[in-house]
Amino acid sequence: MTKAEIQLIRSLGDKRGRSETGLFVAEGEKLISEIRSSQLRIRKIFALEGLFTGPDVEIVSTKEMERLSLLKTPSKALAIVEIPHHRLDVGAFDKHLVLALDEVQNPGNLGTIIRLADWFGITDILCSHDSADCFNPKVVQATMGAILRVRVHYVDLPALLHEARQASIPIYGTFLEGENLYHTPLTPHGILVMGNEGRGISTEVGKQVTHKLLIPPYPADCRTSESLNVAMATGIICAEFRRRQG
Amino acid sequence: MTKAEIQLIRSLGDKRGRSETGLFVAEGEKLISEIRSSQLRIRKIFALEGLFTGPDVEIVSTKEMERLSLLKTPSKALAIVEIPHHRLDVGAFDKHLVLALDEVQNPGNLGTIIRLADWFGITDILCSHDSADCFNPKVVQATMGAILRVRVHYVDLPALLHEARQASIPIYGTFLEGENLYHTPLTPHGILVMGNEGRGISTEVGKQVTHKLLIPPYPADCRTSESLNVAMATGIICAEFRRRQG
Repeated sequence: MTKAEIQLIRSLGDKRGRSETGLFVAEGEKLISEIRSSQLRIRKIFALEGLFTGPDVEIVSTKEMERLSLLKTPSKALAIVEIPHHRLDVGAFDKHLVLALDEVQNPGNLGTIIRLADWFGITDILCSHDSADCFNPKVVQATMGAILRVRVHYVDLPALLHEARQASIPIYGTFLEGENLYHTPLTPHGILVMGNEGRGISTEVGKQVTHKLLIPPYPADCRTSESLNVAMATGIICAEFRRRQG
Repeated sequence: MTKAEIQLIRSLGDKRGRSETGLFVAEGEKLISEIRSSQLRIRKIFALEGLFTGPDVEIVSTKEMERLSLLKTPSKALAIVEIPHHRLDVGAFDKHLVLALDEVQNPGNLGTIIRLADWFGITDILCSHDSADCFNPKVVQATMGAILRVRVHYVDLPALLHEARQASIPIYGTFLEGENLYHTPLTPHGILVMGNEGRGISTEVGKQVTHKLLIPPYPADCRTSESLNVAMATGIICAEFRRRQG
């Protein structure tokens, strides 16, 4: 491995480096195998002996992997991968359930949400520009490979939701004053908006929401934690959307 | 603050230190306020100026807090608190829903599960002895105060479940070969067992499960992430138990 390669990998730990190069780093044997059999293009793989073969593979030592890895626990293989460009098909919003994240900032939460979107067959996630970056190494790791199947789009969220609303797409969002999720009719298609970890859905985005939902605590009047984690809330609502279609 | 106090706090980062002293560390202004108005007993509070007053409070500088804190991002206040001893009321298992964790090892997962138990009004969690420790500073932080309301019991899980089964308590658990959660009758009481992050429910514990459940992916035949995170799966199943009672 060259000094330039080490510097490149370091730079891909930051969003700026990823934007400038159009590359991201994927770590872990299983994930890299999955990428290899996907449509994504791998530029180079660095791996310990015995894991991968091919013209794009360079065998490195455990010590070298420790230097390269962007994760807390260094993996046995690391790949430099081209960031895919997904076309956003706004016309599909009236056919499927789509997630929209309004400034979800924690990489672990974003990764978990991508993973559960995959579980529930949700193929598109819209993110406001100030959301965490889905090619952050922590997010890539937390998705457990789901990043290869779920398309994440960074968009002007208020403008896009406004457009969707004009086209009569139902837009769901959670609010403290929302209606009990289990008593609200849910369509099999539409957009489900989830908000920032601390502030929830922003005023601007909230204006576009056509169906305000609340996950009821239990029992309804008991003193509980004030809120569920955003990834947990997303999972519970998606499960209910899917149950209704079961 | 004395050198002995610094050493004590350091030692409380480990399970051994907590077991030997019967103490744990809670950090954050909000959490400590909540503890003060709970039944838990605080031994001492270290805090930046202007946050807390009282005979048990010592004002420290930002630099000193950085030295004391067990968290990545040092908080403004830290308290040494006595670990509460909860009595386990096995007789209540036929009245309420109780969670049982079979070697859930990630502190973040345990904290998230305690938080959502609180949200769903679940007051007792049984943990196998090899589960993460609920007074680990990372767990305490992830519970967002729920640790003050939810009672976590470390028990011989296979033995306790065997006893519960003899007493005809329904015992639920998730398995790949389980029955669709949404097609299974659920009782408002019983024990819901969740398994280890990698291996799921152990053979020994699995033998005691009377109702095997599966959260269906969607669509059922699509290629998805192999599994949901254990905390996410717990949330989705608890939500369904509660929905049936709504």
